[in-house]
Amino acid sequence: MTILQPFKTEIDLKTGVFTPETGIIKRYLSQMRSMFADTDAVERILADEGDRLLYEVYVTKLPEEAGQILHCTTIIHPGKIGSEFHMTKGHYHARREEGEVYLGLSGDGCLVMQTQEGATDVQFMKPGTAAYVPPYWAHRTVNIGEAPFVFFAAWAGDAGHDYGTIERDGFRKLIVDAGGRVEVTDNPKYR
Amino acid sequence: MTILQPFKTEIDLKTGVFTPETGIIKRYLSQMRSMFADTDAVERILADEGDRLLYEVYVTKLPEEAGQILHCTTIIHPGKIGSEFHMTKGHYHARREEGEVYLGLSGDGCLVMQTQEGATDVQFMKPGTAAYVPPYWAHRTVNIGEAPFVFFAAWAGDAGHDYGTIERDGFRKLIVDAGGRVEVTDNPKYR
Repeated sequence: MTILQPFKTEIDLKTGVFTPETGIIKRYLSQMRSMFADTDAVERILADEGDRLLYEVYVTKLPEEAGQILHCTTIIHPGKIGSEFHMTKGHYHARREEGEVYLGLSGDGCLVMQTQEGATDVQFMKPGTAAYVPPYWAHRTVNIGEAPFVFFAAWAGDAGHDYGTIERDGFRKLIVDAGGRVEVTDNPKYR
Repeated sequence: MTILQPFKTEIDLKTGVFTPETGIIKRYLSQMRSMFADTDAVERILADEGDRLLYEVYVTKLPEEAGQILHCTTIIHPGKIGSEFHMTKGHYHARREEGEVYLGLSGDGCLVMQTQEGATDVQFMKPGTAAYVPPYWAHRTVNIGEAPFVFFAAWAGDAGHDYGTIERDGFRKLIVDAGGRVEVTDNPKYR
């Protein structure tokens, strides 16, 4: 095995921006068309205002292999699609037995989790919240505030991502704005 | 395998303190007697002022097993032993092939690293610095400022700690105050 050289990344703890810039993943509404409950709202936004940037992920360039601790920041921009707050796609780890830890840096959000056996969990996050995703839990983050929700994440290099299961089945719980109150509701489309 | 329940910890990003409080490890000068270069200074401090708290570690209660991402905050109090800044014991991972990531939260410090093959590295850290410890690098942190140096760390549950190798051999590099300037010097006692 090659021994990697140590390095550092400067993270703006308010905005989540990395210096030096490594890779940025940008997720737009058009890439998550079928993931929001209110598909009419999705199509209306795409037609009226064009595509919308929902979130960005700054990642370090590390090999996706056992022994590495991958890390990134995620910035979820504030807003809603219908009554549902902006959120990430969410995923299981390809190796289900790998966990992950999040540290809230800026803004307000929540971490929505579920297992394939039917358990669900929601952890509310603010700056300083270390939220733990134990092995076997799918995870999605949601911005429930009016400013960007920014957090740091660390996970094992060989965990991998399984987005397909969530794209097909969805999450059991939705995070919605119920007239100014944040509510956790059942997903009518969950299968 | 038991599926753990998700949970969160609130971290004060200024002080590093965990709520709810889980486990705290406190390291005193008397526990690191032989680790500082100036052993006369160590004994003088112990005799004159009594024992000194050098650093504290707040840890989450998670099983130390594969798949978990352990995480903690470390608070190194400011000060020097002779000309050497307060520091952690430092260790290799018992499983050398496991890396670790640090995120600076408050104060100024540095991350001193070395491999068993003789490579050395020092990364200076401030709030927002994500410093990466690749697999195979021993790691120690040092407070080079006048306020507590606080950082968050995440690593694999099965990495384990080997403190013994460093207790026996030391680190190749010391971080010292050279008349108001932070200097990286060779450790005369390194073997």
